[in-house]
Amino acid sequence: MSLLDPVLARLDVDFPAAVGRLEELLRIPSISTDPAFKAETRRAGQWVVDQLVAIGFEASLRDTPGHPMLVAHHPGPGTGAGPHLLYYGHYDVQPPDPLDLWRARPFEPQIVDGPHGKRVVARGAVDNKGQLMAIVEALRAWVAVHGTLPCQITMLIEGEEETGSPSFAGFVRANRDELLADVCIVSDTNSWTIDQPAITTMLRGIVSVEVTLHGPSHDLHSGMYGGAVLNPINALTRVLGQIHDDQGRVRFPAFYDDVREPHPDELAAWNRLGFSEQEFLAGAGLKTPTGEAGRSVLERIWSRPTCDLNGIWGGYTGAGFKTVIASHASAKFSCRLVAGQDPKKILAGIRAFFEARTPADGRWAFETSGGSPAVRVPAESAFLGAARRGLADIYGRDAVLIGCGGAVPAVGMIQQYLGMDSLLVGFGLEDDLIHSPNEKFELRCYENGMKSHAAILARIVELNTTSK
Amino acid sequence: MSLLDPVLARLDVDFPAAVGRLEELLRIPSISTDPAFKAETRRAGQWVVDQLVAIGFEASLRDTPGHPMLVAHHPGPGTGAGPHLLYYGHYDVQPPDPLDLWRARPFEPQIVDGPHGKRVVARGAVDNKGQLMAIVEALRAWVAVHGTLPCQITMLIEGEEETGSPSFAGFVRANRDELLADVCIVSDTNSWTIDQPAITTMLRGIVSVEVTLHGPSHDLHSGMYGGAVLNPINALTRVLGQIHDDQGRVRFPAFYDDVREPHPDELAAWNRLGFSEQEFLAGAGLKTPTGEAGRSVLERIWSRPTCDLNGIWGGYTGAGFKTVIASHASAKFSCRLVAGQDPKKILAGIRAFFEARTPADGRWAFETSGGSPAVRVPAESAFLGAARRGLADIYGRDAVLIGCGGAVPAVGMIQQYLGMDSLLVGFGLEDDLIHSPNEKFELRCYENGMKSHAAILARIVELNTTSK
Repeated sequence: MSLLDPVLARLDVDFPAAVGRLEELLRIPSISTDPAFKAETRRAGQWVVDQLVAIGFEASLRDTPGHPMLVAHHPGPGTGAGPHLLYYGHYDVQPPDPLDLWRARPFEPQIVDGPHGKRVVARGAVDNKGQLMAIVEALRAWVAVHGTLPCQITMLIEGEEETGSPSFAGFVRANRDELLADVCIVSDTNSWTIDQPAITTMLRGIVSVEVTLHGPSHDLHSGMYGGAVLNPINALTRVLGQIHDDQGRVRFPAFYDDVREPHPDELAAWNRLGFSEQEFLAGAGLKTPTGEAGRSVLERIWSRPTCDLNGIWGGYTGAGFKTVIASHASAKFSCRLVAGQDPKKILAGIRAFFEARTPADGRWAFETSGGSPAVRVPAESAFLGAARRGLADIYGRDAVLIGCGGAVPAVGMIQQYLGMDSLLVGFGLEDDLIHSPNEKFELRCYENGMKSHAAILARIVELNTTSK
Repeated sequence: MSLLDPVLARLDVDFPAAVGRLEELLRIPSISTDPAFKAETRRAGQWVVDQLVAIGFEASLRDTPGHPMLVAHHPGPGTGAGPHLLYYGHYDVQPPDPLDLWRARPFEPQIVDGPHGKRVVARGAVDNKGQLMAIVEALRAWVAVHGTLPCQITMLIEGEEETGSPSFAGFVRANRDELLADVCIVSDTNSWTIDQPAITTMLRGIVSVEVTLHGPSHDLHSGMYGGAVLNPINALTRVLGQIHDDQGRVRFPAFYDDVREPHPDELAAWNRLGFSEQEFLAGAGLKTPTGEAGRSVLERIWSRPTCDLNGIWGGYTGAGFKTVIASHASAKFSCRLVAGQDPKKILAGIRAFFEARTPADGRWAFETSGGSPAVRVPAESAFLGAARRGLADIYGRDAVLIGCGGAVPAVGMIQQYLGMDSLLVGFGLEDDLIHSPNEKFELRCYENGMKSHAAILARIVELNTTSK
C-alpha cells in the first residue's frame, strides 16, 4: 500500500472540518495595507501558528519592521532521509473595498452553490488563505495517518504579500541559514481549468509607485487663477496620459531594454492551450483586448511588462461642484515586470520620465514599495517532474506549464537571496475574483489542492529514495 | 446737509455691532453643495430674512428645487420718486475642506490682526456673507437715520451661487414681474487694492462637468489583467491630458469660435493698472505664469476662456498599495467662459471631445450644472457713472474698470431673463483666500463697503432727481 492512499482517505473524511477551519481563518480581516488592521493581521498569523503547532511544528511569529513573519519547522521522521522542503504562503489579504459590491460581508464567509458545486465566498478565500490551508491540511492528514511527516519541512508564511513584501528581503537575508532547503513550494497561482492542473513557470515581477505633484501653496479659486497658473490635476493627467504611446507601449526610459521575446516553442505551446481571449475578457465584462499592438492576450499577460494606474485623487471629489484649483494631486501605479528587468533600473526610468515632464512651479514626490523581479522556473528540474507526477496522480492528466501575470514577490527574493527555485503549483481559477468583491474558492479546488499537495509530497520523497 | 453724511456717521457708531452681526451669519455652515448641510443652508437664508424684516422689508424664503430663494421688498418713501433698485447676493458658501489647513474652525469666525488692521477669518467671510452684510448694514443705517429708504428696493439673495445657481434661471423667469427693476447692484467682486475702488465690467461665465469613464464590470487584479484590458484610470488621464495643446489652448471643438480679442484700448487700460504678475503669483506660492502662450496674466484671466480640472478620483486611494484595475474613474472640471461663448455650445463641444476619444469597451457618463454665460456691463451707463461718483465720495479717488476671472452666474441670467444690467461693485481683495482655507475679509473693506453702498444709493437717487 502506498504512503499516499491512506492520506487521501483521511482528507476525504476530514474535509468538512477542513472547510470549517478555512472559514475560521477567513473571518480574521488581515488587511495588511491598512494600518487600522495591524492587530487583526497579526491575529491571522498567530492563528496559523496554532494550526502548525497542533500538527507537530515548532512555529512562531517573528517581528519585522512591518507585519510579523511566520516561521515553522518540522524535523520529519528524524532519519535524515528525504529532501528538505520550504513552503511559502501568506496570511494577509487585499482590502475588500468597494464594499457595496459584496453580496455578503467580506469577512463573513458564505458557502454557496455554483456551477462546480459548493464554493466559499470571502476576501482571501483563494488568495491566499484557501491555498495556504490546502497545504496545512495535506500535512495535517499526513501526520494523522503516518504519525510524522516524510521529510524535513520549513514553513515561511508572511503577512505583507499584498503590500509588495517590503520586509521579506531583509528577513530572508538575515535568516538565510535557517530557511535554506532543497526546493520551495508555493500555492498562490491558478490551475489551467478546474480539471486541468498547471504549474506556473513564469511569474511577473512588480514595481509600485505613488507620485504626487505639488503646485500652488494652497487651493485656489479657479475663477481668480484659472488659465494663468499651474493646475496640478491638469498637469498630472497630462503626464500620466503620456505613459503609453499610440501602440500601447510604455514610454518610461529603458523600460524594454532587458525584455526578451518569448521563444517560438513557447509561443507555439501557448497557442496549443486553447485559451479563449473572448471568454477571458467576458469575465471582466469586456469585449476588446487592449495593450501592446500585435500581441496575443497571453503574450501580453505572461511575457510583457505593463504600467497600470491603480488609483488617482486630487481636489474636490464630493457631491456637486467646487471651482477649485487643488494645490496637489496624486496617483498610484504599478508596473508588472518580466524576466530580465531590474526593478531598480525601472524605478530610475520612472523617476526620469516624470522629472523630464516637471511643469514650471511643480514639484514631484515619490513613494515606492521597492519592487521585485520576475521569476522563471527551469522546466527540466527533478522536483518539477515530481510535482507533475503528483498532479497527474490526482487529476488523471498531465499538468501544463503556464505563465502568470501576477507577482509573488517572495518567490523572486527566495531565488535571489536563498538561491532556491520554487514550484508554483496553484489551484485557483480565472474567475475567482481575487482582489475584487465576492472573491471565491471552489471547494473542489480546495480538495484537489490538499490532495495534490499530499501527492506531490509523496512523489518528492519517492524521488529522493529512488535517487539514493 | 447731505442725505449721506448722517448715514456715514451712523455706520461709524454702529460698526462694532455690524461686525457682530456678520460673525453671527458666519457661524451658520451654509454649504450648499453638500446635501448634509441642507437645513443649515436654509437657516442662513432665514437669518438674512429676519435682518431685512427688522429694517422694514417684506421678506421671505421661497422654495425652489434646490435651496430657497430670498426675496424682499421695501417700498421706499412711497412718493414714487427715485429709481427701483435690485440687489443680488448669496447666503451660501463653499465647502471648507481641506479642513486641516484652517488655523481655526471655518465656521467659528476669528477677528485677527493683519497688515491692514483687523480682519475676520471664516468660510464665507468675504464670499459672500461679508459683502452681502455690507449692503444690509448700509440700508439699516439709512433707515435708522431717515426713517425709510430713499427709493423702492428689491433684494434677491440666493442659496445656490456656489453650485452654479441651478434654480436661479427658473425662478427669475417665473417671477419676472416681481423682480424687474431699473438696475441690479451686486457685491461679489474685488476692489483693485484696499485704497483703490473698482467696478467690474467683465465677468467670466462657467460650465461645470463631471465625467466618469466606465470600463470593466468590476475591479480587476492588475497582475491577472494588466496590459490586456481597458484600465479606466489610464484611459481617463490619457483623454484629460489632451484637453490643452502645447500652446496652452483648450482643444474642445469650436471652443474659441465666438471669442473676441480684447480691444486695443482695453489692453492699453489694463497695462496702465500697474498689475504685478509676480505679486499675483507669489500670493499662490508660484513664480511662473502658465496658460495660453503669448498673453499677459490679466488677458488670460479676464478675456480668455479656460478649462481647469477641479477634482479627480478612482481606484485605490488609501494607505499603501493595491494592485487593482478600477472599473471606473471620474473627474470634475469647469470651463470659464468669456463674452460671446454659449454654454450650450461649449457643453456640446466637450461631449464631442470625449466621445471622439472613447476607448474600446469604455462608456462615458456626464453630469453638468448647466452653466452660465459671461457678462459685459456697458461702460457708459448713467448708473455706472453714479456708482463711480459714490465710490469717489468714500475713497477720495476714481474707480478703475476691471475684469474678473470668476463667474457670478446670476448676473448673466439677470441680464438674459430680466434684461437688466448689473453694477458689480465689490470690496474683496486678491489675497482674501476665497474658496480656500482661512478665507478672510478686512474690516476696513467691510467698512468701505457699507459706506460705499450708502454713497452709491445717495448718488443714484440724486441722479434720478437731477434727471427729472
